[in-house]
Amino acid sequence: MREADEQTITEAVLARVRAAPDPRVRQVSEALVRHLHAFVREVEPSEAEWDRGIRFLTETGHMCSQTRQEFILLSDTLGVSMLVDAINHRVPEGATETTVFGPFYVPPPAFAPGADISAGRSGRPMYIGGGVTDPEGQPIAGATVDVWHSDDEGFYDLQKPGPDPALSGRGRFATDAAGRFHLWTIRPTAYPIPNDGPVGRMLEAQGRHPFRPEHVHFMITAPGKAKLVTHIFADGDIYLESDVVFGVKTSLIRAFERHERGAAPDGRAMTGEWFSLTHDFRLAPSREGR
Amino acid sequence: MREADEQTITEAVLARVRAAPDPRVRQVSEALVRHLHAFVREVEPSEAEWDRGIRFLTETGHMCSQTRQEFILLSDTLGVSMLVDAINHRVPEGATETTVFGPFYVPPPAFAPGADISAGRSGRPMYIGGGVTDPEGQPIAGATVDVWHSDDEGFYDLQKPGPDPALSGRGRFATDAAGRFHLWTIRPTAYPIPNDGPVGRMLEAQGRHPFRPEHVHFMITAPGKAKLVTHIFADGDIYLESDVVFGVKTSLIRAFERHERGAAPDGRAMTGEWFSLTHDFRLAPSREGR
Repeated sequence: MREADEQTITEAVLARVRAAPDPRVRQVSEALVRHLHAFVREVEPSEAEWDRGIRFLTETGHMCSQTRQEFILLSDTLGVSMLVDAINHRVPEGATETTVFGPFYVPPPAFAPGADISAGRSGRPMYIGGGVTDPEGQPIAGATVDVWHSDDEGFYDLQKPGPDPALSGRGRFATDAAGRFHLWTIRPTAYPIPNDGPVGRMLEAQGRHPFRPEHVHFMITAPGKAKLVTHIFADGDIYLESDVVFGVKTSLIRAFERHERGAAPDGRAMTGEWFSLTHDFRLAPSREGR
Repeated sequence: MREADEQTITEAVLARVRAAPDPRVRQVSEALVRHLHAFVREVEPSEAEWDRGIRFLTETGHMCSQTRQEFILLSDTLGVSMLVDAINHRVPEGATETTVFGPFYVPPPAFAPGADISAGRSGRPMYIGGGVTDPEGQPIAGATVDVWHSDDEGFYDLQKPGPDPALSGRGRFATDAAGRFHLWTIRPTAYPIPNDGPVGRMLEAQGRHPFRPEHVHFMITAPGKAKLVTHIFADGDIYLESDVVFGVKTSLIRAFERHERGAAPDGRAMTGEWFSLTHDFRLAPSREGR
């Protein structure tokens, strides 16, 4: 093929990538070429715009480091992460819905039941508790519950300056014989995703705010069950309708209930304002290869 | 919009980016979201595949430096650069066809007519000459002719190791009163694009070779004329049918003629083997804003 003009170039590239020995590589390559060329044909970029696109991708790559994943932010803010999540988690009726994983997970330290994971950070105390069951409500003992969330200024521990920030606001718990877990922490807050890079500039050009509504991340695993990656969002947050990464589902919104003084569910005597978040998570059966 | 599920997520993202104040940003953003989501819906990536895609883009970004543009290589090898070139250069009948710019251009040093631009590099001498006219064949005096090409091992001067490689194999010439130019250099060769990075791994996975057929780059400008960016390819090259960047057009293939001894077109007395490449370039009228 030596005559790749505006009409024939797409077929020429498709013919080339069909040589891929691996059928999945062939399938993904063909689809990529078709959709990428269709995008270019639709918008007809000028050469200056093409150059701007190359620079945007280059700067997005250069922004990526050990503690910053700008391409995940790009995927998140274009709704791709939620679409991939939806495709991979067509959960059965009755199971807890999933949402995006986000870029702030690391395997957390394990804690005893009821421990405080705030590592001494200041903030308003919050009790988190719940159960883990199958879709029919049968308790799952020994499930692993990873919890992580921002502090009350909207930052995750990993975002703190310095080469090796101390972990806080994250922990691993096991459900007891009744399938229950609980812990103490501080209440997080709504926050902007990191927006001092190319993705932040894209959001600004698109007339969008960079905020996520207040939420707590959960990843729950148990033998024979599908891994559940989800958040619980705080009811009443002003960003629930416009989460910058499109992660909110109505079934994942719960009251972060405010209390004055008195006894917490685990008997702890509270002397001032505190909050509680309780939710029961229902794990779908595991699917092969997922 | 708080219920972005597999069916509704695309419309939710489109609704968001329609807030872009600039109509072109709005148009490009909407098209990007539609085509990107259509790609994801078609291939249904697993989460591991999505992660691999994120890492591919990140590594492509990290490969980019002052002397290496991996995203341009990606655009080139997926046929996007040639498609953008075709869209931006719908040249009128009679004008020379365009092809990709490539990543190896820098503004070259100016030379007097007939000068040798090989800067002492060893290789087989080659005479390059031609004319610059409008599509009707009227000579254009004072046109600027930038020429650049690889050496006989397939490397451009910019690819030589070291922080500040000496320029060679590139030069700027002006056409004379009759619209003619000529120069001496060494004959280049077919070469692989840089393939020690993510794009090279993509080509390997797609079962593709990384070679471009032997060619010389030209960029020609003149007042009132559209800038012409093109190559002339060597007839007979084994990669003419399979240029890794899809740049070959039949009208751009010329014999790189072999000669023994004797007088060159400019009167230079040759004592051994030499080559000549002659071509007349026809510039389209300039278009507003391009």
